[in-house]
Amino acid sequence: MKAVRLHAYHEPMRLDEVPEPTITGPHDVVVRVGGAGLCRTDVHIRDGWFAPAVPTELPLTLGHENAGWVHEVGPAVENVAVGDAVICHPQQSCGFCAACRTGDDMRCAMGLAFSGLTRGGGFAELLKTTDRAVLRLPAGLDPVAVAPHADAGLTVMHAVRKAVSLLGPGTRVVVVGVGGLGHIAVQCLRALCAAEVIAVDPDPDAQKLALDCGAHHAVPASSVAEQVADLTGGAGAEAVIDFVGEGNSIANGLAMTRNNGAYYIVGYGGEIRISAIDMITTERRIIGNLVG
Amino acid sequence: MKAVRLHAYHEPMRLDEVPEPTITGPHDVVVRVGGAGLCRTDVHIRDGWFAPAVPTELPLTLGHENAGWVHEVGPAVENVAVGDAVICHPQQSCGFCAACRTGDDMRCAMGLAFSGLTRGGGFAELLKTTDRAVLRLPAGLDPVAVAPHADAGLTVMHAVRKAVSLLGPGTRVVVVGVGGLGHIAVQCLRALCAAEVIAVDPDPDAQKLALDCGAHHAVPASSVAEQVADLTGGAGAEAVIDFVGEGNSIANGLAMTRNNGAYYIVGYGGEIRISAIDMITTERRIIGNLVG
Amino acid sequence: MKAVRLHAYHEPMRLDEVPEPTITGPHDVVVRVGGAGLCRTDVHIRDGWFAPAVPTELPLTLGHENAGWVHEVGPAVENVAVGDAVICHPQQSCGFCAACRTGDDMRCAMGLAFSGLTRGGGFAELLKTTDRAVLRLPAGLDPVAVAPHADAGLTVMHAVRKAVSLLGPGTRVVVVGVGGLGHIAVQCLRALCAAEVIAVDPDPDAQKLALDCGAHHAVPASSVAEQVADLTGGAGAEAVIDFVGEGNSIANGLAMTRNNGAYYIVGYGGEIRISAIDMITTERRIIGNLVG
Amino acid sequence: MKAVRLHAYHEPMRLDEVPEPTITGPHDVVVRVGGAGLCRTDVHIRDGWFAPAVPTELPLTLGHENAGWVHEVGPAVENVAVGDAVICHPQQSCGFCAACRTGDDMRCAMGLAFSGLTRGGGFAELLKTTDRAVLRLPAGLDPVAVAPHADAGLTVMHAVRKAVSLLGPGTRVVVVGVGGLGHIAVQCLRALCAAEVIAVDPDPDAQKLALDCGAHHAVPASSVAEQVADLTGGAGAEAVIDFVGEGNSIANGLAMTRNNGAYYIVGYGGEIRISAIDMITTERRIIGNLVG
Repeated sequence: MKAVRLHAYHEPMRLDEVPEPTITGPHDVVVRVGGAGLCRTDVHIRDGWFAPAVPTELPLTLGHENAGWVHEVGPAVENVAVGDAVICHPQQSCGFCAACRTGDDMRCAMGLAFSGLTRGGGFAELLKTTDRAVLRLPAGLDPVAVAPHADAGLTVMHAVRKAVSLLGPGTRVVVVGVGGLGHIAVQCLRALCAAEVIAVDPDPDAQKLALDCGAHHAVPASSVAEQVADLTGGAGAEAVIDFVGEGNSIANGLAMTRNNGAYYIVGYGGEIRISAIDMITTERRIIGNLVG
Repeated sequence: MKAVRLHAYHEPMRLDEVPEPTITGPHDVVVRVGGAGLCRTDVHIRDGWFAPAVPTELPLTLGHENAGWVHEVGPAVENVAVGDAVICHPQQSCGFCAACRTGDDMRCAMGLAFSGLTRGGGFAELLKTTDRAVLRLPAGLDPVAVAPHADAGLTVMHAVRKAVSLLGPGTRVVVVGVGGLGHIAVQCLRALCAAEVIAVDPDPDAQKLALDCGAHHAVPASSVAEQVADLTGGAGAEAVIDFVGEGNSIANGLAMTRNNGAYYIVGYGGEIRISAIDMITTERRIIGNLVG
Repeated sequence: MKAVRLHAYHEPMRLDEVPEPTITGPHDVVVRVGGAGLCRTDVHIRDGWFAPAVPTELPLTLGHENAGWVHEVGPAVENVAVGDAVICHPQQSCGFCAACRTGDDMRCAMGLAFSGLTRGGGFAELLKTTDRAVLRLPAGLDPVAVAPHADAGLTVMHAVRKAVSLLGPGTRVVVVGVGGLGHIAVQCLRALCAAEVIAVDPDPDAQKLALDCGAHHAVPASSVAEQVADLTGGAGAEAVIDFVGEGNSIANGLAMTRNNGAYYIVGYGGEIRISAIDMITTERRIIGNLVG
Repeated sequence: MKAVRLHAYHEPMRLDEVPEPTITGPHDVVVRVGGAGLCRTDVHIRDGWFAPAVPTELPLTLGHENAGWVHEVGPAVENVAVGDAVICHPQQSCGFCAACRTGDDMRCAMGLAFSGLTRGGGFAELLKTTDRAVLRLPAGLDPVAVAPHADAGLTVMHAVRKAVSLLGPGTRVVVVGVGGLGHIAVQCLRALCAAEVIAVDPDPDAQKLALDCGAHHAVPASSVAEQVADLTGGAGAEAVIDFVGEGNSIANGLAMTRNNGAYYIVGYGGEIRISAIDMITTERRIIGNLVG
C-alpha cells in the first residue's frame, strides 16, 4: 500500500510503497483510512522536536488524526465490526491500568503507543490500531469530515473542559490563535459556558472565522493587550487558552490572565518564564494540556 | 507608643515613639498587640521587593501576623468587644464586593489594605484594623501563641486545600522547606488527606521536625531528586508544595512533579522557567499561592 | 404609609396604614419599594405552612422579592447611598459568621431574618433592611422589572448551578413547571450548559413560553413519562428540576431521573416517598433547594 | 465441583455438585475461589428482594465478594496469568462504553452482569468471570483475607469518597451501623478527612470496635439523637452514612443531618419519607449509594 513516511528529521516526507499491516494480536484493528488530518505537531515531529523525549524509529508513517472504516479485526474485538465507520484515538492504551480505568488513557501504564509518533500513523491506505482506540461513528457522520477531531477536537475539549470550571456568568475567556484548534475552541466555549469569548489572531480572515464561530470579540494580536484590558476593565480574563505557545504569545497570554485566573498552554515552541513573586502575588495558574 | 518602623529600603528597622492609633471610622478596631510574627516577607519588604508593585509610604510599621486583645472599637462594630482575644487577618476588606461575599477577601474590589505592607502593622503596641479583619479566638487560645497563623498558617491551609483535591489514597506529596510554613504544612496534610508526605530540607533539625510533625519521609535537598524518584517509582509526586521558591528549588520542584500533577509555589525569590513543550507533554500545572 | 398585612392565617391580607420604618442601627437601610413580587410562597405563608418552623408575629407585611431606591441609610452604610436603585435579598445576614464569609448567607449564624416572613416585607411603600442585603443595580436596570429576581431568579440560579455540574454535552435536563421560576430556569440552563432542555407543563401557553425561552422540547405533564423516556432512550434525564413539588410531580420527577442522576426539588407541598432499595440500586440523588 | 446454590426464594441454599465452568470467550477468566464473603445482600437475594428488578434464573450460586487465584484464562487475557492472586469485582463490564471508559462500570451499557446475582457467584470451588473484573493483588496480600473488600470495602469507599467533599476541618460525620461495612467506613473516614467521626450502634461490642477503628465517639442507637445533637451543638452532622437503612434508621439519620448536609443511604429495607417543604427549608441531600 501507499504510505507517506519520514526518513530523516528536517527532511520532507516521501510517498513509499510499504507492506499492508496485518492482524497479529487479539485486539488488533486495521482501519482503511478515510481522512488523516495534518497537524502542526506533524511539522514538529518532522523537525525532531519529540526525538529526545519519545524514542522513534525512522522511517515512520506520520498521521495521528485518523478516521475511516474497519477493514479487519482480531479475534477478541467486540466493539466494532468490519465495515464500521470509526474515528481513531491516536493512543493505543491497555484498558486495565488505573489510568485507563478512569479514562486517563494518555497516561496508560504501558506508556505511549501513539499513531504517527511511536508507531505507524494514518498517512497511508491502512492503519493498524486496537479496539480500545477506535470509536464507532454515529450513522450519518462521514469519517473524512471528522478525522481532525481525533486530535484537534479532543485536545480542544480537554483544555476547554478544564477552563469551564472558572467560566461562570460575567467572566471572560481569551482564545489565542484561531486556527485548526482555536476555531473549535470558540464553538465549544459558546456551547459549554456563559463566558464572553475574546478571540485573538493577527489574520483578519481568522478573526472573521472566530466571529462566525460565535466569538463575542475578535481582535488582532498587535493590540490585544490594550483591547483585552479594555474589555475586562483592566483586570484580564479569568481564563486564557493559548493555541500558539511561541513568540510573544506566552508573555502576552500570561499578561492577559486575571489574578486568580488560569493560563492554559496548548500550543508549543516557546518558553514560559515568570518570576515566583509575580506568580504568587497574582495567584495565577499555568496549566499544561495534552490530547484529551 | 513604641513601634518598629522601616525608614528606608535595605536598612534596619528602628524602634520609634509614635502616636497611638485612634478610631476614625465606624468599623475600626484597635488591637493591643499580644504577638506579631516575623516572616520572611518582612525581610523582602525591607529590601524593597514589593515597592514596584505595592505603593507604600515610609516610614512604615511592619508586621502582618498579629494577634492580641481588642482595645477600642468603632460605633458599628458588633462582632467583637473590648477585651476579646482576637487574631488579625492582615487584609482589611470591604465585605460587600463580589470577591468578599465569596470569601476571596484578598481580591477585594477596594484593593490591598494590608497591615505591615500598605498600612501600619503589628510591630507596635497597638494595631489599627477593621471588624471584618479580626476573628475572636476560642476560649483558652493565647494570642501570643497563634499570631503567626494569621499569615503563615493561613497561607499553608490555602495551598494545602488546593493540593488535597489531588491527594487521594496511594498518592505522594512533597513539602519543600520545613521552616515556619513547611512544618505546618506537614501537619495539615496528615490531617486532611491520605497521601504519603515527603519533606525536603537540607537542615537535619528541620528533617527531624518534619518527622515529628508526621512526615512519612524527610530527605536532604541534595539528594531529593533521587530519593523522590525512589519513593515514587520514578514518576514523581502528585503534588509538590514549594515554600522556598528560590535557588534550584523551583527547577527541582518541577522535576519532582508527576505528569498531570501540580507544583504549588508559595516561597518566592526565584524564577520559573520551563519550555512549553515540556509543560504540554507532561501536562503539569504550576499554581501560584497567596495568603488564604 | 400603606402596607399589605396578614392578620390571621388562611385569611386575605388587608391594606393597612402603618408607621414608616426608621433607621435604628448603623447598618440599616430603608428602601422605597419600586416592585415587590408575589410568590407562591406568599400564599403558603398566608396559609400558615411556615408557622410551625418559623416563629412569626402577626400582623405581618409580606413580600420577599423586593427592589426599589435607597431612601435612608444608617451611619455605617458605605455600599449604597440615598437614591441608588437596589435589589434586596430577603435575608439580612450578619456578614461575620463562617457561613456569611463564604457566601452562604441563608445559613447565617444569627438565624433567619427574612423580609416578609420573620420581619416586615415589601408589600408596603417603604422596606427596612440592611446594607449587606441590598445590591446596587447597574445603570439602566429598572427596579420594578427585576424585583422578582430577588427570590425567583436567585432560587433558580442556585438550583441550576448545582445541576450544571452533571450537565455535560449529550445530557438531558427536565424542567418541571414553566411558571415564574421554570421559565427563568430554561434560560439559565441554555446559557450555562450544553444539555438538551425538556420543559414539562400541562398548560399549552407555558409550553410555548418554554420554547420561546429556548427549551428544546416542551411536553404536557400527562404524557411526560413516555415522552421523556422517548427522548432519553428510556434511561431518564441526568437532572430533573422540579418547580412544582406537589401532586404526582415528585413521583414523576423521580421516575424521570436517570440512574446516578439528580432530582432537585424546589417547589413544595407534597411528600417524597421512595424505598431505600430503589434509591440504592439506581444510585439517584434527591437535592433540596432553598433561596440562593 | 461443589457449589452452594439457591433453588427457591425464601428457602435455605443447598450444597450441590455442579460442572466446572469452562473458558468460552476470549476474555474469560476462571478463578479458584480462596474466599467468598457472605453479605446481608445475599440474604436479601435469597428472600427475593431483587427478583422484580433483576431477572435471575434459579438455581443460582450466590456470592459476590470473591478473591482467589487465576485457574484458567481465555486467549485474549493479558492483565493476569494463571496462578495470580486476584480480587474479583462482582460486575463484568464491557470496558468500551462511555460508562466503562470513565470508571463507572456499574452502569455499563451492557447492563448488569453481576456474580452471585445475574450469574454464578463465588460460593463454589471455581468462579467464572472476565479479565476486566479481576485485579491482581500486590505480593503478600492473601485472597482469603481481602475477599469482602470486593463488595463491602468498595461500597464503603464509594460512599465515603462522596462524603469527604463535605468533610473539611471542624465538621462531623455519623456512621450508622458498625457492622461489616461500618467498621471499614470509620477507618476510611479517619484516613481521608479531618472530620470528627461519630459511630452509632446498639451493640456495645460494635461500639468498642468503632472506637478501636478510630471513631472519636461511639453511641448507642437509643440515645443517638440527643448525643449527636450534643456533639454538634444541635445542628446535626455535615454527613450521615447509613449502613442500616431500615427500621427507624432512615428517619433518625435524616434528623441527624445538618442543614445543607447530606444523608448517604447504603443499607436498605426501609423507606425514605420526607415532606418537600422539609427538604427545601433544610436544603439537605439524600444520596443513593451502590457498589463502587
